[in-house]
Amino acid sequence: MQRLDEAKKEAILQAARQRLSQYGVRKTTMSEIAQDVGIAVGTLYLYFKNKNEILIAVTKAYSHQHLIDTEKILHSSMSAPQKLKSYLVNRFRAVREYRLGGSHSAELARSVIRLKPELPQEQGKVVKNNVLIILKEGIKTGSFQINNLEQDLEVFLFSIGYFFPMPTTERYYEPEEEKLCIVIDWFIQKWSVE
Amino acid sequence: MQRLDEAKKEAILQAARQRLSQYGVRKTTMSEIAQDVGIAVGTLYLYFKNKNEILIAVTKAYSHQHLIDTEKILHSSMSAPQKLKSYLVNRFRAVREYRLGGSHSAELARSVIRLKPELPQEQGKVVKNNVLIILKEGIKTGSFQINNLEQDLEVFLFSIGYFFPMPTTERYYEPEEEKLCIVIDWFIQKWSVE
Repeated sequence: MQRLDEAKKEAILQAARQRLSQYGVRKTTMSEIAQDVGIAVGTLYLYFKNKNEILIAVTKAYSHQHLIDTEKILHSSMSAPQKLKSYLVNRFRAVREYRLGGSHSAELARSVIRLKPELPQEQGKVVKNNVLIILKEGIKTGSFQINNLEQDLEVFLFSIGYFFPMPTTERYYEPEEEKLCIVIDWFIQKWSVE
Repeated sequence: MQRLDEAKKEAILQAARQRLSQYGVRKTTMSEIAQDVGIAVGTLYLYFKNKNEILIAVTKAYSHQHLIDTEKILHSSMSAPQKLKSYLVNRFRAVREYRLGGSHSAELARSVIRLKPELPQEQGKVVKNNVLIILKEGIKTGSFQINNLEQDLEVFLFSIGYFFPMPTTERYYEPEEEKLCIVIDWFIQKWSVE
């Protein structure tokens, strides 16, 4: 069996991501993806057995990028309030980039969720956990004073929910980063030890 | 010309609302609406020239109901915090009732907005203004202490935005009234003079 090449795999995922979000899952064939990468379709099948496997891999790549971005922010020298804002603006931009990345990105998201129905809840948990880590760090370092952490966390996450429309829905409003920052700053101020 | 009867007009609007949200705007005919009410289609045309006129009238009836509900709450003997919660829960239920009222309610909302594109913004302004009135009353009566009213109002409205998904979109999540109340109570507590 031909040895699999990580760089080639990466190139396949990038091409697939672009084609899938631009033309949709149904209209995209394995041959077209192979053509975009400039490889034979037989070679493509060595990497992925079918479109579903590609969808799963594309999704994993997104989650992996989220993880890398998060680690970078959490381990930076920023203060907890800065980390909070930086992390959520990063998420906001990632979601927006995905949503505006192609006319079929909503269809693509729906296909992924059909394959992995637990995904939205899992992602929600990851975000919740990261925000919790940052808030706890802020409390520890004296940046935040929060009496009821669990409650404030829940209210805060609902309060920014408007800025994260589900990617499975065709765009019907475009939330503004500037407004998200107003909401985050407001909460940071409420939590700040004066 | 035959004299128009308010009760009959009301019956037409109720029948139209039900049929339109259940079967959609495109599939509904003037004859079907007349049949639902139990009047001749010629009589229906005395009241409304076409489906668009009916759509506009249905929308006006919704706005009128909002106005009636609002007046009742604003002029009640409740405290400002109670009014705030009561008003927003009333809005939440009205939007949910509309959304769940028929399988074509999203299509109906899109048709209405094609006819009146300014509607969502207008409705947003009405809600914003009503919340402002309640907050001002709360400040005056000593229930609330708010230093930057304009900013807090903006943040608060974004914070509850998640609970009011646009009616033009097919349902993709169902916000919970209980969670909305948690968010409202949290803000009320922050604003409460201790």
